[in-house]
Amino acid sequence: MSGRSGHVAVLGAGSWGTAFAKILADAGREVTILARRESVAEAIRTKRRNPEYLPDVRLPDRVTATGDAEEAIVGAEVVVLSVPSQTLRGNLAGWTPYLHPDATLVSLMKGIELGTTKRMSQVIMEAAGVPADRVVVVSGPNLAPEIAAEQPAATVVAGTDGRRATLVQSSIRTPYFRPYTNDDVIGCELGGAVKNVIALAYGIATAMGFGDNTRAMLMTRGLAETARLGVALGADPITFAGLAGMGDLVASCSSPLARNRTFGEHLGRGATLEQAQVATRQTAEGVKSALAVRDLARAHGVEMPITEQVERICHEGMDPRLAVDALMSRTAKPESYE
Amino acid sequence: MSGRSGHVAVLGAGSWGTAFAKILADAGREVTILARRESVAEAIRTKRRNPEYLPDVRLPDRVTATGDAEEAIVGAEVVVLSVPSQTLRGNLAGWTPYLHPDATLVSLMKGIELGTTKRMSQVIMEAAGVPADRVVVVSGPNLAPEIAAEQPAATVVAGTDGRRATLVQSSIRTPYFRPYTNDDVIGCELGGAVKNVIALAYGIATAMGFGDNTRAMLMTRGLAETARLGVALGADPITFAGLAGMGDLVASCSSPLARNRTFGEHLGRGATLEQAQVATRQTAEGVKSALAVRDLARAHGVEMPITEQVERICHEGMDPRLAVDALMSRTAKPESYE
Repeated sequence: MSGRSGHVAVLGAGSWGTAFAKILADAGREVTILARRESVAEAIRTKRRNPEYLPDVRLPDRVTATGDAEEAIVGAEVVVLSVPSQTLRGNLAGWTPYLHPDATLVSLMKGIELGTTKRMSQVIMEAAGVPADRVVVVSGPNLAPEIAAEQPAATVVAGTDGRRATLVQSSIRTPYFRPYTNDDVIGCELGGAVKNVIALAYGIATAMGFGDNTRAMLMTRGLAETARLGVALGADPITFAGLAGMGDLVASCSSPLARNRTFGEHLGRGATLEQAQVATRQTAEGVKSALAVRDLARAHGVEMPITEQVERICHEGMDPRLAVDALMSRTAKPESYE
Repeated sequence: MSGRSGHVAVLGAGSWGTAFAKILADAGREVTILARRESVAEAIRTKRRNPEYLPDVRLPDRVTATGDAEEAIVGAEVVVLSVPSQTLRGNLAGWTPYLHPDATLVSLMKGIELGTTKRMSQVIMEAAGVPADRVVVVSGPNLAPEIAAEQPAATVVAGTDGRRATLVQSSIRTPYFRPYTNDDVIGCELGGAVKNVIALAYGIATAMGFGDNTRAMLMTRGLAETARLGVALGADPITFAGLAGMGDLVASCSSPLARNRTFGEHLGRGATLEQAQVATRQTAEGVKSALAVRDLARAHGVEMPITEQVERICHEGMDPRLAVDALMSRTAKPESYE
């Protein structure tokens, strides 16, 4: 059954899944990408390119692809999950029967499940029926196009089982990619999910003409409220100062190409949610996360003023100018996470 | 002697000192700026503008100026120090005789004294002969031109005496400026001093063509090494995730106008230190701090790989391309501050 030791399945052929497959192959692993459409799988097999995402990047010979879940998953030592957050549970229902009983499951996803307010690793544990130690989370400042271009980058590999975290770390270490291990799964996942909300706020502020001080404040106070929620859920506050916290947030806010920031810029120029969706041809992940994170914060009695304002702008049609006033007029207080 | 209760002296008429005087006046304080040159003081008194820095900003009527230290300082309840880091000790020798015995001394400076490797608050305590509780540090993402334009911003007011920190907080709270108190003086000062070194590295990386992932990694790992040094010196690691740590670092790296970043860009394009000094008509604060911070780190046995590389590029003529290789080839390890 474990005849393909060292073999890795990457489930999802999006931008990050494709770039991650390249990293794994460059680190010496044999990789099979599972693409939803067989035409994409065939293009990867025959042309060594993903025509939908990162079409200019030649994939290493160690990467192959299939449209068949069983073929991709059976016997894989490591199974990487890289699908839209809200589809993960449904996808896993179909994939679980093929999982090797000792396979390590790696989450690349940054979101909170709507309705349940569960983190992606919790969804994996429930839907695949695996214990926490089988799940590893990879999160950091990892804009896929730059990594595919082999620009130097770093990431965090978080797992409760140090042996599995180290296995994943060694599977993705290349001259251009530097993975750090961490045992704080909750902190790494929350950092990734909430940063999409803060990046929306950053985009809104950018479009409204605010400068670098204001936007640095927004990022920092955004990270502070993320850490407050994290501590309430059992995370280590130090994680938020690291690559999966500050690092990911800074990269997502700085890049003019990042999706949540761009979506926020439309909102900041006065577009409605619907208009922004039409203009960007998508709904940014942070729009859904703003709801889920707000619900999670309220359930735990944690104040998240920036998330609250983003939720109101996205889902209640609030004027962004009122949001700025609301944020600046809060009572003066000590700088702390409590 | 304390006949001017509520009166504030701002010693130094540079960009930040001038903007800070405006904040104090907007918060309701009577402010006297001490300018080195009487001509600058006179322009502030008569034209309500500082002709050298922020010349487009009209100063409030509550701001006056003088070239006479005694006139500025005598009776001031709060004395704000805003001079170049390496001149602070010499300046204080002349100013100390005029200090009210209970005056609160506020440091706006971000540097480490060369030779002694002392923080600015330590220099103040020594040179003015005051105990630690008399000194308050203000630090955060505070690019002066944006604050003078009343863009929303936040800062940290750090002091060991909570009453004095609160006094300063209430003296600078305005609708556009939001001060948070904190009791970690060491952390706030180190965050400000080391960020100049990391901003140099950021500028170097920018000029070399590195993207947002790489630069986010540089900022995050730069903050991690700052926090490691901070912990060795007694700081709270959480401070570095706040406005005086991450916030200030992000603002200084993001702004294309920030001095250390710009200086680093010259180095990254292959300029020598001398060429960069000629091109920018100054020596960026981070160039000196790189030496002082490295010495401090070595004295405490703390690894600061980014600071080490910046020091080598600035002072040993090292090729920045070799620095990148050196940073990326370090052994894989856990993400932590210890």
